[in-house]
Amino acid sequence: MILQNIPPVRGKKTYLQIVDMILDQIAQGKLLYGEKFYTEPELMELLGVSRPTLREALRVLEFLGIVTVAPRNGIRISRPQETSRYLPLLYGLVFDGISQRDLFELRQSLQIEMAEHAAHRRTAEDLKKLRLLLLQTEKNLSADSETFARLDYDFHMQIILASGNFAAAKLMNTFGLLMQAQLFQIIKEMPVEHRKHTLRCHTEITEQIEKQNGFYAKELMYSHLERSRSLKSTDLTPAPFPFGTYVSY
Amino acid sequence: MILQNIPPVRGKKTYLQIVDMILDQIAQGKLLYGEKFYTEPELMELLGVSRPTLREALRVLEFLGIVTVAPRNGIRISRPQETSRYLPLLYGLVFDGISQRDLFELRQSLQIEMAEHAAHRRTAEDLKKLRLLLLQTEKNLSADSETFARLDYDFHMQIILASGNFAAAKLMNTFGLLMQAQLFQIIKEMPVEHRKHTLRCHTEITEQIEKQNGFYAKELMYSHLERSRSLKSTDLTPAPFPFGTYVSY
Repeated sequence: MILQNIPPVRGKKTYLQIVDMILDQIAQGKLLYGEKFYTEPELMELLGVSRPTLREALRVLEFLGIVTVAPRNGIRISRPQETSRYLPLLYGLVFDGISQRDLFELRQSLQIEMAEHAAHRRTAEDLKKLRLLLLQTEKNLSADSETFARLDYDFHMQIILASGNFAAAKLMNTFGLLMQAQLFQIIKEMPVEHRKHTLRCHTEITEQIEKQNGFYAKELMYSHLERSRSLKSTDLTPAPFPFGTYVSY
Repeated sequence: MILQNIPPVRGKKTYLQIVDMILDQIAQGKLLYGEKFYTEPELMELLGVSRPTLREALRVLEFLGIVTVAPRNGIRISRPQETSRYLPLLYGLVFDGISQRDLFELRQSLQIEMAEHAAHRRTAEDLKKLRLLLLQTEKNLSADSETFARLDYDFHMQIILASGNFAAAKLMNTFGLLMQAQLFQIIKEMPVEHRKHTLRCHTEITEQIEKQNGFYAKELMYSHLERSRSLKSTDLTPAPFPFGTYVSY
């Protein structure tokens, strides 16, 4: 691990230079995931910066999920799999006042396109998980809305995971957190007849993924989502900050 | 604008509570975009926090593009249109070591699905901009790679903008920054014959957007992108941190 003094760069604040340099070292494989990092006093000396400046950089890195700073355990480089969403993006989307419609469309884009990739890349293990979710959905056709909504979410997430695109899964979870109330409302208002239809759609999508037919998997996903989208396609209300619904990554 | 003392919340660090509270006030419309904010001493008193803690919160907010902190001008709430990408997401993607393939697929998802929404929602102004870009592309069929790559990027971005999904445009720009080298390489290796084909594809897509035919706009975009994807579909190299290619939002 190589850290050098921060040379003054015109226009770029020192804390940001520290953040950039540390991320660059990680990207280059010079700092490793999970690795114990220098202590604060060591970093102050190595980088030639004051404690307040270093603290600012560490807070930004901590907020980004890049390091964890614990009172007794010191500073540690995180591991990507420790976070299931891009929390900083969530803050950006809320700040921009993203509408429910735009959120829905972003999520839908990933779901449709990743269904095709899932069909091409799914493993036997992925298929087993999808089949299990279909069985659980069948058993829970008359369950409470929370249970049904959770199974529905898990099914769609499993397809994204089967695509092998890890960032797509994190983006889905990020959008999902902002759409919780909206998605739950759709499920809550759904009569049992529609739940059966959802199960049929999920079953057909799974069959195409099993057959590795990307084209049909995608087409079926498109029509499946189009129905729920039509319910919400004009909703330009900004997504609220999900204050208090989570405390960490 | 209502700010109250930060009550101690178990497990959530103080700087993060300040960040959450300020974002929540913005989401609720109690703090307005562009508004001049309290000074540091005022905030310390209002929130009942120390200067180092406040500074940490302000740095995170600044990094997120939510406030700007200038030595002489004090603290100001930013405006969403001041940023053209989600820089904090870029840091997250680089930290996760996202592959060129995954980046390409994420970008492609947005491009394909937003082509359909663009067809439904494009304005006369959007069409004018697309037509102008086609003309410029025609004039620059033999230009240097930089010029051609820029026109190609602008065309695709204009379609996303025509979809009216502002977050999709910011996401495109975020992915784009990480793919600059890759996209430029594709254009650089492209013989003039292929450039002509690109122009034909762009023209056909524009025609379908003009006719408001979402289905064909999307299909044409799919096949257009599929060709360049096949060049790169197995590239699992992590995207490098674009160190030094930008200095701000």
